[in-house]
Amino acid sequence: MAGSVLGDRFTVSTWGESHGVGLGVVVDGCPAGIELREEDIQKMLDRRKPGSTKYATPRKESDRVKILSGVFEGKTTGTPISMMVENTSQRSADYSKIADVYRPGHADYTFDAKYGFRDYRGGGRSSGRETIGRVAAGAIAQKILEELGISVTAFTRQIGPYECRDEYLAKENIGKSPLCMPDLERSGQAEEYLTQMIRDQDSVGGIVECVVHGMPAGIGEPVFDKLDAVLARNIFSIGAVKGVEIGDGFAVAQKNGSQNNDEFLAGEDAEVKKRTNHSGGILGGISDGDDIVIRAAFKPTPSIFKKQKTVNRQGENIEIEIQGRHDPVIMPRAVVVVESMTALALVDALFTGMTSRMDRIREFYKRE
Amino acid sequence: MAGSVLGDRFTVSTWGESHGVGLGVVVDGCPAGIELREEDIQKMLDRRKPGSTKYATPRKESDRVKILSGVFEGKTTGTPISMMVENTSQRSADYSKIADVYRPGHADYTFDAKYGFRDYRGGGRSSGRETIGRVAAGAIAQKILEELGISVTAFTRQIGPYECRDEYLAKENIGKSPLCMPDLERSGQAEEYLTQMIRDQDSVGGIVECVVHGMPAGIGEPVFDKLDAVLARNIFSIGAVKGVEIGDGFAVAQKNGSQNNDEFLAGEDAEVKKRTNHSGGILGGISDGDDIVIRAAFKPTPSIFKKQKTVNRQGENIEIEIQGRHDPVIMPRAVVVVESMTALALVDALFTGMTSRMDRIREFYKRE
Amino acid sequence: MAGSVLGDRFTVSTWGESHGVGLGVVVDGCPAGIELREEDIQKMLDRRKPGSTKYATPRKESDRVKILSGVFEGKTTGTPISMMVENTSQRSADYSKIADVYRPGHADYTFDAKYGFRDYRGGGRSSGRETIGRVAAGAIAQKILEELGISVTAFTRQIGPYECRDEYLAKENIGKSPLCMPDLERSGQAEEYLTQMIRDQDSVGGIVECVVHGMPAGIGEPVFDKLDAVLARNIFSIGAVKGVEIGDGFAVAQKNGSQNNDEFLAGEDAEVKKRTNHSGGILGGISDGDDIVIRAAFKPTPSIFKKQKTVNRQGENIEIEIQGRHDPVIMPRAVVVVESMTALALVDALFTGMTSRMDRIREFYKRE
Amino acid sequence: MAGSVLGDRFTVSTWGESHGVGLGVVVDGCPAGIELREEDIQKMLDRRKPGSTKYATPRKESDRVKILSGVFEGKTTGTPISMMVENTSQRSADYSKIADVYRPGHADYTFDAKYGFRDYRGGGRSSGRETIGRVAAGAIAQKILEELGISVTAFTRQIGPYECRDEYLAKENIGKSPLCMPDLERSGQAEEYLTQMIRDQDSVGGIVECVVHGMPAGIGEPVFDKLDAVLARNIFSIGAVKGVEIGDGFAVAQKNGSQNNDEFLAGEDAEVKKRTNHSGGILGGISDGDDIVIRAAFKPTPSIFKKQKTVNRQGENIEIEIQGRHDPVIMPRAVVVVESMTALALVDALFTGMTSRMDRIREFYKRE
Repeated sequence: MAGSVLGDRFTVSTWGESHGVGLGVVVDGCPAGIELREEDIQKMLDRRKPGSTKYATPRKESDRVKILSGVFEGKTTGTPISMMVENTSQRSADYSKIADVYRPGHADYTFDAKYGFRDYRGGGRSSGRETIGRVAAGAIAQKILEELGISVTAFTRQIGPYECRDEYLAKENIGKSPLCMPDLERSGQAEEYLTQMIRDQDSVGGIVECVVHGMPAGIGEPVFDKLDAVLARNIFSIGAVKGVEIGDGFAVAQKNGSQNNDEFLAGEDAEVKKRTNHSGGILGGISDGDDIVIRAAFKPTPSIFKKQKTVNRQGENIEIEIQGRHDPVIMPRAVVVVESMTALALVDALFTGMTSRMDRIREFYKRE
Repeated sequence: MAGSVLGDRFTVSTWGESHGVGLGVVVDGCPAGIELREEDIQKMLDRRKPGSTKYATPRKESDRVKILSGVFEGKTTGTPISMMVENTSQRSADYSKIADVYRPGHADYTFDAKYGFRDYRGGGRSSGRETIGRVAAGAIAQKILEELGISVTAFTRQIGPYECRDEYLAKENIGKSPLCMPDLERSGQAEEYLTQMIRDQDSVGGIVECVVHGMPAGIGEPVFDKLDAVLARNIFSIGAVKGVEIGDGFAVAQKNGSQNNDEFLAGEDAEVKKRTNHSGGILGGISDGDDIVIRAAFKPTPSIFKKQKTVNRQGENIEIEIQGRHDPVIMPRAVVVVESMTALALVDALFTGMTSRMDRIREFYKRE
Repeated sequence: MAGSVLGDRFTVSTWGESHGVGLGVVVDGCPAGIELREEDIQKMLDRRKPGSTKYATPRKESDRVKILSGVFEGKTTGTPISMMVENTSQRSADYSKIADVYRPGHADYTFDAKYGFRDYRGGGRSSGRETIGRVAAGAIAQKILEELGISVTAFTRQIGPYECRDEYLAKENIGKSPLCMPDLERSGQAEEYLTQMIRDQDSVGGIVECVVHGMPAGIGEPVFDKLDAVLARNIFSIGAVKGVEIGDGFAVAQKNGSQNNDEFLAGEDAEVKKRTNHSGGILGGISDGDDIVIRAAFKPTPSIFKKQKTVNRQGENIEIEIQGRHDPVIMPRAVVVVESMTALALVDALFTGMTSRMDRIREFYKRE
Repeated sequence: MAGSVLGDRFTVSTWGESHGVGLGVVVDGCPAGIELREEDIQKMLDRRKPGSTKYATPRKESDRVKILSGVFEGKTTGTPISMMVENTSQRSADYSKIADVYRPGHADYTFDAKYGFRDYRGGGRSSGRETIGRVAAGAIAQKILEELGISVTAFTRQIGPYECRDEYLAKENIGKSPLCMPDLERSGQAEEYLTQMIRDQDSVGGIVECVVHGMPAGIGEPVFDKLDAVLARNIFSIGAVKGVEIGDGFAVAQKNGSQNNDEFLAGEDAEVKKRTNHSGGILGGISDGDDIVIRAAFKPTPSIFKKQKTVNRQGENIEIEIQGRHDPVIMPRAVVVVESMTALALVDALFTGMTSRMDRIREFYKRE
């Protein structure tokens, strides 16, 4: 695969640049018979839309999605679903200054090293707008998961030094915070901190956490396509992510086996449960029926307004001051992207899981 | 893909169980003309062999690799390379007791949930021995990287509370530590700590770090197959890994953009360098020419000898005491596995990168 | 893969239905630096356009292509190229009558069997219009082949009983025939025959032949991805194709080895040539440097205006008379589709072929 | 994919050369719970074994298969199944003479063109022995099809001018003919013809036909992965195949739509049937519930004992007389290979088909 196609059974092919005609995605392998309207997609896209709070770029992106194929009389037909968002608010002039400049922390230099030149307008394909296709596809994946009783919920766990406490993670509070931080006290502190960052012409990193509830046990493949490996890859493919962990993650480095092992417990009807969830819902690459817990570390927005030293295409040392409209923090808008990339991994794994056992295949095809 | 096949251009298909006939791998897509002898593979396999120190299981595994195809007159032919290690030292009787038991922290329950039953001997396919195929394939990938001037070096960064200090990471010291910790003072402390763990019938987690040197800039794909995403997936697919980070990793959550951005600097001949390497050698999913730095968190060995509560296949709450031969720590033997999985990702990315630019393709095929 | 994604390195993802919003394609893995304008694509699409002669449906399809991404300042950027054609001339009302009917020779019944329902307007995804995405992608593949000195030319070899004679296959005559038959005498006879078919409310089958010139020796993979196997699959994936042959094809069944073997001959500079080309340019799945010759058998258009017996969704035996606008013959419009599917296979094989030999990889990456 | 890996869900990775240590295959994605013994595989391998009649090479190949992984207590575990046949009867000396010679009709030259050199012993990877891995994997695929009530039966339809008549295709007669020709009169004539060919130091081509019975309607993907396209690719990947057709195949070129369309007919319980089967069981790339009928044209064995003109590696014109042991006809031993490649395509398509409809996925995962 050449890099913009993802997934084996539920295959997603995204396209588009920040300042081109538009951005979009083709989803191949979506089952027939799912009710799907543009509003289902739009709802998710609106969550990544900037301009809603002062902590996001004041750019106005209308980002109206159109479904171009694969849906007939309100239901998916089983054939490819093409979706598109037209670019409307792009001001390419803002970027002409950086055409020859390698912005620190951005992919300008590496794109040139790879391709020989680049669409420099707004970062081109490396722009955050590239995630529009992911979220549109993820919205469909989420619909499939809903039908199977599986929910995916992400939120901002940490911004700079402010981390949500375990006792304050109520799902219903996520929407009450402009930063998607369910611990509203920490959210308030993080808001003050961000205000300071904006004054300082700086930006800040953080952590997004994602919880999957309702996943049946037995999903995921045992070797290279471990469920955690595929989740990690999907989430690491989001622009600013520098680390991913599952369950207790990096904390396990300092733990003993007796602390880290989750003891099993027979539930009602001899159902297998765990007393704790250090594993984060995955054992040996396969879901264990518990909540899947993933965390992703996001670097601070590389576009800062402070003066920075760098190099231009001619190989000269120069100084730049980035202008334009940029978020001081990535996480609040990335929350829905993390959910989307998680949902895409889960759907692919669930579809793959349907051929694990001959008895179930036999039953599936035995329809009089 | 069904889970035991990895890679698009350099494709690896592993097979085998801990206590079956043997374990092996088929490598498809290896270029013709590489000098390859069984010793090249054996050298790497020996590094994952247990029994060399008291911190590893006293099992003796001879693990002699045989090349079964794809090499003629000492050179790869371009056709599939099949390699195999026969199982010789397996004592299946040790495991009959656990046939019906779900060991905490192991994949026993999830395999049963997925497949309906499992080869319980030594963990079957979920055994650490599964990595034999990975390391054999990785040895070939490493040979390819060597020919391109790229080195991959992993070491134990941390065991429990003992972490190598940045000033003591000299490559030549890795081999002097039985734990692959180049900071020899910390290695000594970790050894004492491990001795205590063994006495306590417990185990301990840690971190492996891997550094890639000599990678050209411009390798990796910009969206889903970002170089960091593929590396993360590959390394997350190793049994006990619970977290992966690139460059500054999770530390970026608390950093500002002005701290985290690596400023560019024109080197001699206008070459583009970075003043720092917070990015860990990858920007926008594409290599930036700097060292690639990856860290992976390993959980403590789940096989501990302490009494644990759990459940059996019949859904009854029981207690078990695991017996047999088990490492109290995974990292020293995992170092070569991390290198292997890294090398596999890099070779695939380098091969993919050959078709990024039409001018280079034209030149490649223009051979009078 | 779920079926609408093709190719490993040059990956094509098509979408769209006959009477939906439009049809299109996303091409991932196209190298950077190729000059590409909408006219390059349009030129090819116009060749599959109906309405140019009386032997094609009188529907007028403007079919204007738009490039939505992946091209900047007139050159491909290396990122996905999205292309789209809007549907403008669709009259869905024509099809409401067949919503519940299974037309003989069409995919109506099998789509219902697979998906439970279908977009019945104009055949939906099974319409010949689905090839728009293939041709748009093929146009880019053809540009790549041109840069490497490789040409792909298809023509109508046979319509019903009228077959072009080997001595009358001059490339420049293809365009002179409304049926793309370079043997203009046979073309004239076939035209008369088609006129009769139209009067009879019937349709007719035929053969398209495709010749690849300039292919270097050594391209194609030796086992499952034999160049002929990939070509066959690509061409068999075109709607009405019922047979594919390479070189002498089915005629070899009656030949002896001494007749069928192509003897080698040392050309100037010891170059390896063949005295004959029974092989059709491929030996052991790998190109031998000679012209690649492929033939595809197309069934008669299943939409005929004669009364036919069939079944409806309710399982009742009924009679239908198909109405609307339909070609009595598929080949003339399929010629460019066969070229496109051939070009897609060749580009993928050429890209794959770049990693066959370590010496060439080493040289590729050795750029001071 | 690099060429020796096949299939998306039921993935087959073959390896091995004619005169190396052995040949084998790894099957990934085989469901758990299928009873599988080495005899199941051996039975199929024996059908491709030479030496049973005078029309096959007198080489004796014991070709005993060993299952190395993926089976526990007589049942598949869901993890990769590795199978191997050791080479025992190879006489490499026979081939030293041809090390520098390009045999007409063989892949010697194209392998050299691709890889720079080749394992010349017995054709190396391009040997007919390469099909051992295919047949071993196909044997497992056939077991899966059996469990779903689907049978795959191939036979020799034609040898040189002798073609089985439609009225004499009784399945039970296939085994009575040393040439696998169920029309025993034609089989006798073909035997005489072959005797003459052997005397003439020549070889002869033919056609293998394969019939799939019991395939449910609705299997196959509608665009690039049409069931016929995948079947064609699989069968075209067999060494000597030069043409593939489905249903009426090339004969459709001369037919009218009114002759070629299969009218539908309501069977009992409103079941949809066809009055004829010109389509060969596939409409629009999707199975229509009728028998699938495929024919493949095989070229005459290129190894003939007559003197032939050719070229050597040094680019000199020379003459050769091939020696050794070679079949004068390929079809009788290829019959089981055609069945295997067909079975592999069908299993992959059936597995893919399980995710076509959301209602069935929902039902699959709704297990209280």
